[in-house]
Amino acid sequence: MALIVQKFGGTSVGTVERIENVADRIGLFRKHGDDIVVVVSAMSGETNRLVKLAHSIDEKPEAREYDVLLSTGEQVTIALLSMALNKRGIKARSYTGTQVHILTDSTHNKARILSIEEKKMRTDLNEGRVIVVAGFQGVDEFGNITTLGRGGSDTTAVALAAALKADECQIYTDVDGVYTTDPRVVPEARRLDKITFEEMLEMASLGSKVLQIRAVEFAGKYNVPLRVLSSFDEPSFDDGDDAANGTLITYEEDEMEQALISGIAFNRDEAKLTILGVPDKPGVAYSILGPVGDSNVEIDMIIQNISADGTTDFTFTVHRNDFTQAKEVLRQVADELGAREVVGDDKIVKISLVGVGMRSHAGIASKMFKTLAEEGININMISTSEIKISVVVDEKYLELGVRTLHSAFGLEQN
Amino acid sequence: MALIVQKFGGTSVGTVERIENVADRIGLFRKHGDDIVVVVSAMSGETNRLVKLAHSIDEKPEAREYDVLLSTGEQVTIALLSMALNKRGIKARSYTGTQVHILTDSTHNKARILSIEEKKMRTDLNEGRVIVVAGFQGVDEFGNITTLGRGGSDTTAVALAAALKADECQIYTDVDGVYTTDPRVVPEARRLDKITFEEMLEMASLGSKVLQIRAVEFAGKYNVPLRVLSSFDEPSFDDGDDAANGTLITYEEDEMEQALISGIAFNRDEAKLTILGVPDKPGVAYSILGPVGDSNVEIDMIIQNISADGTTDFTFTVHRNDFTQAKEVLRQVADELGAREVVGDDKIVKISLVGVGMRSHAGIASKMFKTLAEEGININMISTSEIKISVVVDEKYLELGVRTLHSAFGLEQN
Repeated sequence: MALIVQKFGGTSVGTVERIENVADRIGLFRKHGDDIVVVVSAMSGETNRLVKLAHSIDEKPEAREYDVLLSTGEQVTIALLSMALNKRGIKARSYTGTQVHILTDSTHNKARILSIEEKKMRTDLNEGRVIVVAGFQGVDEFGNITTLGRGGSDTTAVALAAALKADECQIYTDVDGVYTTDPRVVPEARRLDKITFEEMLEMASLGSKVLQIRAVEFAGKYNVPLRVLSSFDEPSFDDGDDAANGTLITYEEDEMEQALISGIAFNRDEAKLTILGVPDKPGVAYSILGPVGDSNVEIDMIIQNISADGTTDFTFTVHRNDFTQAKEVLRQVADELGAREVVGDDKIVKISLVGVGMRSHAGIASKMFKTLAEEGININMISTSEIKISVVVDEKYLELGVRTLHSAFGLEQN
Repeated sequence: MALIVQKFGGTSVGTVERIENVADRIGLFRKHGDDIVVVVSAMSGETNRLVKLAHSIDEKPEAREYDVLLSTGEQVTIALLSMALNKRGIKARSYTGTQVHILTDSTHNKARILSIEEKKMRTDLNEGRVIVVAGFQGVDEFGNITTLGRGGSDTTAVALAAALKADECQIYTDVDGVYTTDPRVVPEARRLDKITFEEMLEMASLGSKVLQIRAVEFAGKYNVPLRVLSSFDEPSFDDGDDAANGTLITYEEDEMEQALISGIAFNRDEAKLTILGVPDKPGVAYSILGPVGDSNVEIDMIIQNISADGTTDFTFTVHRNDFTQAKEVLRQVADELGAREVVGDDKIVKISLVGVGMRSHAGIASKMFKTLAEEGININMISTSEIKISVVVDEKYLELGVRTLHSAFGLEQN
């Protein structure tokens, strides 16, 4: 008997039939004696339909009203799932973000959760009810509806699990866990039974789209045991490394021995920009990145080369969609700073080795570079952190690079 | 310069283009200097889509969750209309029933409004904002979402007008006012410039589907000047009996002289049931109607014939959809009471003359009966109130009856 928060994404509740399946699954957990809080997304396609409606009125719809609109998507799902549960004799009650008082700041379209009122939910749980909460949405201190941004339902689930001190937060997706890399690129990719929060954070931020990065941060901060699993497998009530148990995201301290490398993440959506011959003086990084950030372009990797002849070269990567806009801004900055030139490339990808084990082991980086060199893959940029090494290469080398590294580090073996 | 509450139904906001039209219309009123509170329904088709979703899960979906589901329809419209207004530089802010705190009782699916918090709205109006409120929905004292039942958006508009002491509540529809009868039945039917609340109440309850009956009651109770007009006509800022001014629903006291008859209402959806040979003793009416009411069947006309030989006959009418169910209940009642027989007819209609003037004029009833008799129309049941006379006739006589009465009482003349 445990208190479990379960999150089902848009695909898992995409049709009435799938909503019925989710209700059946919850029924099995109730029979097993567990208390269940469910978080659901909008039915797949619904958010896009609403976005299209908004954009047919205004290309840049007012942020507050956009949230009022989008939040209806999840509201439909909570009502339908609660109906399906009640029909099965499973007592259930739905709550919008406003009703369960998921208090956020007032940053519409990407609000942050500040607190959650648990009293109402505790009463419902004590009375034997399943609680069905709309993901992705909250309410600010003035009563305005806010949304957490795309994928925010994961964050809602983790925040609820933290507030209720749940035994586990289960994120149901269409894959059965976290893999050493994308199986579509490397068929030998292996499902991980466990991965640390820090590794998961790096995997998520690098484009393994299983979990939303903010959700992982949140789970780490509040020590919420998080599990990624498939909504298509029968639930398993046994412990062990059954596929039905997906991947458990744990704290590093739990494990005595860590694999050197847990997985290989990659990101196809990168583009790089370089500003050449910038006069090298204090504050130059801010003069360059400030205007880019102000234009709402998110910057990923940043590299500044050692200064020679009083000028420096400055390179960073952005999302491929933002390439043109960022280049525009950078040209203006170059003029203002008296820089020589702006060059860019939107045909690049990033490949990253991730693993907490690499902290205490030298030689991972050099093995990585050697492996790539042997395949004739030229490295454009390198960036490292304590538990990851990322390289930027030409996009045509993505599959070859990932496959070669996967094999060189023996990731297909358990 | 006035404070006007405007309500637009599902057809008037049925597409993005129509929502843009509504925004343009509001812009004209703003230019004229009026403060505007708008109430909108769900886009036409949307409520049916949601109802279908619910019924594909459960034929009798849980009432609380049904309201959570249906209320999203209006929420979509308020967001889209507010976006359209803001795009035009008209400051606007949307509110759900919960946000503007339209407090109702807890009767899900047909809740009643108890109070409305006007403070927030007053602040917005003072700051020059158009307020866009979701019709049809409210919130109970526990924070549960409630709905007022179909057509409840009219009631929302009137309740807001009452709370804000608005100068006028305008109900926009696809017709340009209230007619002496349905123009599809009598082409000579004439639009009324004014009608009293009491007459409107009778017209509405008898099937003139222009306004929701509860909205009219509400308007009468709180002295809210109510106007029915077309969302397809250009707005008129002149007084007078311009068609663009629709029909104003007034208090009787305003007019020195009343027309004898204002209009003819009819209802095609009636069915009648008779229980014959009921032992006549105190409480018999309740023993019969109690069980029918308990099965959620609404009863319209009731007639009990004078008792002879210690038994009585008891006849009432119900909505045609409830005929089978009501007959079932009545059969059981008949057994319990030792009544002789239950008979029924679901091929009947009701025709009613409505007019406050008939109070002080005898002879209206006899003229009505004579007119029908001359056309060979047999009257099944008669029921009268201070300002209306209703007859039940075979459904095949509906058009003939209405046309003949319209002409006999000179309703086509102004």
